[in-house]
Amino acid sequence: MPSPTATPTALDLAQALIRCPSVTPEDAGALDVVAEALASAGFAVERPVFSQDGHPDTPNLYARIGSEGPCLVFAGHTDVVPVGDEAAWHHAPFDARIADGMLYGRGAADMKGGVACMMAAALAFVARRDGGFSGSIAFLITGDEEGPAVNGTVKLLDWARARGERFTHCLLGEPTNPGRLGEMIKIGRRGSLTGKLTVLGRQGHVAYPHKAENPIPGLLRLTSALIAEPLDGGTAHFDASNLEFTTIDVGNTATNVIPATARATFNIRFNDDWTAETLGAEIRRRLDAAAGNAVRYLLDLQPSNSPAFLTRPDAFVGLVAEAIHAETGLTPVLSTTGGTSDARFIKDACPVIEFGLVGETMHQVDECVAVADIERLTAIYGRVLDAYFP
Amino acid sequence: MPSPTATPTALDLAQALIRCPSVTPEDAGALDVVAEALASAGFAVERPVFSQDGHPDTPNLYARIGSEGPCLVFAGHTDVVPVGDEAAWHHAPFDARIADGMLYGRGAADMKGGVACMMAAALAFVARRDGGFSGSIAFLITGDEEGPAVNGTVKLLDWARARGERFTHCLLGEPTNPGRLGEMIKIGRRGSLTGKLTVLGRQGHVAYPHKAENPIPGLLRLTSALIAEPLDGGTAHFDASNLEFTTIDVGNTATNVIPATARATFNIRFNDDWTAETLGAEIRRRLDAAAGNAVRYLLDLQPSNSPAFLTRPDAFVGLVAEAIHAETGLTPVLSTTGGTSDARFIKDACPVIEFGLVGETMHQVDECVAVADIERLTAIYGRVLDAYFP
Ligand SMILES: [Zn+2]
Ligand SMILES: [Zn+2]
Repeated sequence: MPSPTATPTALDLAQALIRCPSVTPEDAGALDVVAEALASAGFAVERPVFSQDGHPDTPNLYARIGSEGPCLVFAGHTDVVPVGDEAAWHHAPFDARIADGMLYGRGAADMKGGVACMMAAALAFVARRDGGFSGSIAFLITGDEEGPAVNGTVKLLDWARARGERFTHCLLGEPTNPGRLGEMIKIGRRGSLTGKLTVLGRQGHVAYPHKAENPIPGLLRLTSALIAEPLDGGTAHFDASNLEFTTIDVGNTATNVIPATARATFNIRFNDDWTAETLGAEIRRRLDAAAGNAVRYLLDLQPSNSPAFLTRPDAFVGLVAEAIHAETGLTPVLSTTGGTSDARFIKDACPVIEFGLVGETMHQVDECVAVADIERLTAIYGRVLDAYFP
Repeated sequence: MPSPTATPTALDLAQALIRCPSVTPEDAGALDVVAEALASAGFAVERPVFSQDGHPDTPNLYARIGSEGPCLVFAGHTDVVPVGDEAAWHHAPFDARIADGMLYGRGAADMKGGVACMMAAALAFVARRDGGFSGSIAFLITGDEEGPAVNGTVKLLDWARARGERFTHCLLGEPTNPGRLGEMIKIGRRGSLTGKLTVLGRQGHVAYPHKAENPIPGLLRLTSALIAEPLDGGTAHFDASNLEFTTIDVGNTATNVIPATARATFNIRFNDDWTAETLGAEIRRRLDAAAGNAVRYLLDLQPSNSPAFLTRPDAFVGLVAEAIHAETGLTPVLSTTGGTSDARFIKDACPVIEFGLVGETMHQVDECVAVADIERLTAIYGRVLDAYFP
C-alpha cells in the first residue's frame, strides 16, 4: 500500500505526460505514465488496442479500483493536436517548461493537464481512504480523440460493456472554462450534422443563356432558403441551433462559360429540439419548398455520430458545482456550447458532465495553463470524490 | 488581267484554307492563300505582323483595289479554334473532305468558308467589271480573332488609319445564321463586362460562430441582389441585358471551419442602354444597397473592350438584306444576339454588319457547311457588290 507522501503531484504527472510527444495517433509513452501511476495506487489496468481498416490502431486504457457500485468514471484523452509552427513556440511544445507560474506545452490545457489532475486526485483519495471506500473509481483514457475518434472511446465503451463494467456517473476533464477556472461546466453538447448540396444545371456559353441552365441562381435560392428562418429559438439548456455554410464551389475558370453544377457544404450545430433525422427532414422540406419544379438538386447528408445530448442538472451536477465553488468562489454556468467531445459517446453509458482547465490556448502555439489551476482542479476533483463517496 | 475562267471558286478557296492547320495563333499558310488569290486579281496586298509583350506575334492581311470612295470592306479571320477530340471527327479536321453535299473541316463555318466566299465574289466582280468600277474594295483579314485578339483587327485598323485608309461600310463574314442561310444579319453586338466579387469575413470554428464572421451569407445576399431585378427590359434592337454568374468559389475543405473569404464571378452581356461605365456604377449601387454596413466586399470590374454597339438599319443594311432575299427567298432578321466579334472594333472605323454561313457546327467536332450554301453566299456577296457599285 503506497504511503501518502509517495503520491505524485498533478504537476509531476502533467509534465511527464507533456514530455511524451503523443501527437494523434502516436502514443509516445503517454499511456505508460497513466498506467504506472494508477497501478501503483492499486487500480487494475487494461490496455486494449483497437483496429479498423483505414484507420491507425490506437491504444486505450481502462483502469478500475473497487468492484461495487456506485462507479464514478474519470474520462479523458492523452493524444494531442499537431504543434503547428514549432518555431513560433516560445517554449518547446514537449519540454513542459514552467515560466511565470504557467506550465507550457502541447496538451497542457487539452487535456493532459486535466488527466493529470484527475489521476492525482484519485491517487490522493485512495491514499486518504487507506484503500477503503464504498464504490469504485474508473478511468477511461483514449489515445484517439483528436484524430478520427474511431478506435477510441466508442470502442473502449463497447469493450467495457462487454466485460460487464457498469458506470454510474462520468466526469470528463476537457478544458471547459473559457477564461477562468470554475466558470463553466458542460452538461451537454449540441449535435453536428454536415450536408452537401449540389444544384444541377446544363453547361453553355454566357452569350446563349437560353441554351444553358445556370445552376448558380438555383444554388443561391436554395442556400438562402436554408438560412432565411432560424431553425429554432433555443431550448431550456441550449442555444438556438445554427447552420453555417462552410464552402461553396463551382470551380469554373472560364468567364464566358455557364457551369453545369454548383455545390455548397453546410454544418449545423443543433440542440435537443432535433435529432439528425428530424433535422435532415426539415432541411429537405426547406429545400423542396424553395426548389419547386425550378431547381434540380441533390442533398447528401453525412452520417452523423454527434447527436445533441443533455445531462439534466441533478445531484451529481450539484455536487460538482459545489466542489468548484468551494475551491474557486465561482458558481459555474451549466453550458452546452462549443464543439463536440467524447461525452457524446459516454452519455450512452451513464450521465456525463465535463469540467477541466481553462481552454483559452488549446490547439494554439504556446498552449499553457496556470500551475495554480492544476493544483486547484486537483483539489476540486478531490472534493468531488470525497462528496461522491462519503 | 486574269480571264474570268481562271477565277478560283469559293469551294476551291475554302478547301485550300481548311487544309492549312491555322489553329490560333498559327498561320500555317492560310494568309498566303488569301494573298495569292487577291493579288492575282489586281489587289494591292500588305501583310503586317503585330507584336505585343506576352502575346504571340500574329500575321494579318490588308488588301485593296481602287483608291476612290466609297470603299466597301470585307472582314474576317483565318485562324481557327483547336480541333478538340480529333478521334471523334468522322472526317479529319484539315482534310476539307466533301461528303453528302457538306464540306467538313475546322473553320468550314467559322470562318474560312465565309472568307472564301467573299474572296470568290470579289474576284468574280473584278473580272466581271473588267477592272473598272467607281470606288474601292478592301479586305481586312486577321490571324488573331479566336485567340486573345490583341495582335489582330484592333492593330490592323490602327495601322490602316495611320496609312490614311478610309472605309465606307464593312461586311464581316462571321457565321451569323443559326440554322439556315439567309435567316439572320447581325447589325450590332451586346457588350460584355466581367466582374469579380469578394466578400470578406473572419475565419473561425463552426461551433463558435460568434467568434468568426462567415462571408457566405453576405455573398448570398449580394449575389442575390445583383439578379433580383432585371437590368433593363431590352431596347429597340437588343434583348434585355443579362447577368450570369460563372463561378462561386470558397475552396474550404474543412467542414468544421468557417472560411475567411468567398468569391463570385459574373459576366454581363449588355445592350445599348449601357456603357461599361454606367453598368459598373449600377452594379456598385446594387451591391452597396444590399451590403449596407453589414457586408464588407471588394468588386473588381475587368477592363472591357467589348462595348455594345448598333449599326442602325439604313440603305446598306437594306441592300444586303435584298441580296439575301434574292438568293434565298428569306427576309433576314436584324439581330444583335450572340457573343462578341471583331465588329466591336471595326464599328469605330465605319458602319459594320455581319452576314456569313450557318454557324450550327462551329467550334464543334465535324464542323461543316453545305457546299450549296458556299455557292449561294458567294452569289449574295456578288449581288452586294453589284448593288453597291452600280
Ligand atoms: Zn480535448
Ligand atoms: Zn469567327
